[in-house]
Amino acid sequence: MLIIGLDPSLSCTGWGVIRIEGSRISHIANGQVKTAAKAPIAQRLDHLHAAIAAVIGTHAPDRAAAEEIFANKNAQSTIKLAQARGAVLAACGAAGLEVREHAARLVKKAVVGTGAADKTQVQAMLKILLPGAQIAGADAADALAVAIADAHLG
Amino acid sequence: MLIIGLDPSLSCTGWGVIRIEGSRISHIANGQVKTAAKAPIAQRLDHLHAAIAAVIGTHAPDRAAAEEIFANKNAQSTIKLAQARGAVLAACGAAGLEVREHAARLVKKAVVGTGAADKTQVQAMLKILLPGAQIAGADAADALAVAIADAHLG
Repeated sequence: MLIIGLDPSLSCTGWGVIRIEGSRISHIANGQVKTAAKAPIAQRLDHLHAAIAAVIGTHAPDRAAAEEIFANKNAQSTIKLAQARGAVLAACGAAGLEVREHAARLVKKAVVGTGAADKTQVQAMLKILLPGAQIAGADAADALAVAIADAHLG
Repeated sequence: MLIIGLDPSLSCTGWGVIRIEGSRISHIANGQVKTAAKAPIAQRLDHLHAAIAAVIGTHAPDRAAAEEIFANKNAQSTIKLAQARGAVLAACGAAGLEVREHAARLVKKAVVGTGAADKTQVQAMLKILLPGAQIAGADAADALAVAIADAHLG
């Protein structure tokens, strides 16, 4: 069973694919999709959609997961984030994948053991849980974390 | 020159295509894309993306326009709307279309002559500006209005 975790954002969307076999978790691949800040919004969204569709086409995950989106204090940031998420989730839908959503707190708790863990703790735990994985960056790490949480949360 | 106007929303996205030749505007087509409220979000977003991609493929508009999105008081509504918009704009991007954004007030002003016009006034004016057009519903009407405004705003 393969799970793809997604951390959508307009400037840089992280993704990570893991395999679960019983209670064993292993790393398959991860990466980040960046878009040019100066490109028109429709092109940036299409780039996210196409790149995530390509990742799904390559790895053929059985299910997908993302952190629950929450409203930022800055409404424009929330809108940008939600638009990026819409393009990414549409790519999942095109492949027949549902996207399970998990609260950020539950993701941290599943990976580190406490919902109050910071990014450094999450990344340190990823190195232990996925030994040898080369992680593309902070967004790919967040995506792997949500995939692991999804595995734990059944 | 063909312009597609878009009024994205998760439950029902309106679209409308008009032709402009000099100062003359004519109606080409309009419609609404509905998604099932009970379907998973990723499937709903993919449906919007695929349906708008198909409309663009059929009519081959030269440019696209949508109302500017604004943050609703209800953050969850804003997130739903922005996600739908992200899927729809990604479809425009895939076709190489930029999406020009216009403030709702400017759209009303361009169509009716006053930024304070209500929906009924906009729809009445559409009947005059696009004689004979069968308008699929309120969301298609909003989409045609933004296309007309885009034509006026050059």
